[in-house]
Amino acid sequence: MDVDLDKIPPHLLEDPDPIFAFNKAIIDATHHLAVSYKPNTAFYEAYGMKGWKSFQKTIEYLNAVYPEIFTIADAKRGDIGNTSTMYAKAFFNDLSFDSVTVAPYMGKDSIEPFLAFENKHTIMLALTSNQGAFDFQTKKINDTELYKHVLQTSKTWKNAENLMYVVGATKAEYFAEIRKIVPDNFLLVPGVGAQGGSLADVCKYGLNDQVGLLINSSRGIIYASKNENFAEAASEAAKKLQQQMAPYI
Amino acid sequence: MDVDLDKIPPHLLEDPDPIFAFNKAIIDATHHLAVSYKPNTAFYEAYGMKGWKSFQKTIEYLNAVYPEIFTIADAKRGDIGNTSTMYAKAFFNDLSFDSVTVAPYMGKDSIEPFLAFENKHTIMLALTSNQGAFDFQTKKINDTELYKHVLQTSKTWKNAENLMYVVGATKAEYFAEIRKIVPDNFLLVPGVGAQGGSLADVCKYGLNDQVGLLINSSRGIIYASKNENFAEAASEAAKKLQQQMAPYI
Repeated sequence: MDVDLDKIPPHLLEDPDPIFAFNKAIIDATHHLAVSYKPNTAFYEAYGMKGWKSFQKTIEYLNAVYPEIFTIADAKRGDIGNTSTMYAKAFFNDLSFDSVTVAPYMGKDSIEPFLAFENKHTIMLALTSNQGAFDFQTKKINDTELYKHVLQTSKTWKNAENLMYVVGATKAEYFAEIRKIVPDNFLLVPGVGAQGGSLADVCKYGLNDQVGLLINSSRGIIYASKNENFAEAASEAAKKLQQQMAPYI
Repeated sequence: MDVDLDKIPPHLLEDPDPIFAFNKAIIDATHHLAVSYKPNTAFYEAYGMKGWKSFQKTIEYLNAVYPEIFTIADAKRGDIGNTSTMYAKAFFNDLSFDSVTVAPYMGKDSIEPFLAFENKHTIMLALTSNQGAFDFQTKKINDTELYKHVLQTSKTWKNAENLMYVVGATKAEYFAEIRKIVPDNFLLVPGVGAQGGSLADVCKYGLNDQVGLLINSSRGIIYASKNENFAEAASEAAKKLQQQMAPYI
């Protein structure tokens, strides 16, 4: 749910809260096809106080109307211990998200404050779907790429069973190696669709006996149409992806 | 400006906006001793909409009353290209911060969107002041620690002259090595004070001919007293640090 006012159907701009109106319509039209929604905080912060209000209304709506849906605050946070605790409180307690994405650069004591929250999940960046992933993530430390080092090290942290990892679909050939290190953890997989990742390859190498994959598609679904029928078009696009996934599970 | 309602003077809790009241008093009492203020977004997000309003009022007050002060949004953001642009817009345009802190894990295309903004500075994590810095940042890639690799690589990015780096004062012995790689860039240095870093060591190895150091002290100043005289106590604590710094510049 990366909502950009320049990309949503123009008729919604007359609504007092166009972002929430858009999200609500998309959620209502796709909830039977989705296991999770993932608003990215950047797109709400970009609209200041109004954006934060839309963000808050979106998660409140999800929790009230579709409590079975797994919610992800895509925030990519991470800071020294006491500060990470503040972020964790913000997303887990105040906003009641089920999970939040975090960045690993600052290490163990920046992530364990998130892991300390019971019945919540912390989703750490491992191998991302962008070109910049090759700047640092794939560089080798003693013959082991940094992202594998991140996976191996984080497995030893307190409450590591609450960890999930971001692994981009654009790098499907890496999934086999990743599954050797984290056979059981759920992986959040962006990059199918707009960014060109292959669903077949991701499933071939990434599935485990609990499925273990949460495939994300964003722009391909929410911006399927700019017309008044946008929600219906989103539902169609989601259904198409769901049908592509069905044979694999 | 990491404002925690449990730590500020209790009498402020009667104010309609205790966080802003606290920040305003601290700023008014210390602005002649400080070159910069650095609110950390975590402490505002933790209070939801109210917190964001306090955050916004704080930066608006700084820009209106003390426009010569360099402002830092300590947000440690970073995401794929179009999403980083949204964060950059939020902090640079909408809130008019002079700079924002970012995390390097996602590489070049996650940081260049920030660097593209003219007359703004992007402050990237290099070697942080926490224990977790040793999990990944100091690990060696071809005999070069990751944080050095981050410094070397980022120097080649577009508009790299707008880059500053976070280097923790708790690791003063590393400053000499860091200055070989980035002799000219300004370094933002947390960890003096509460975290135990030595000002003398940081200056010995980190100063360049433009000074090149922005020393951060947070809890040691803003929580100098919990009484009604807290602003005066903060001013005294800031003055003490300023006097410790004076001989070095």
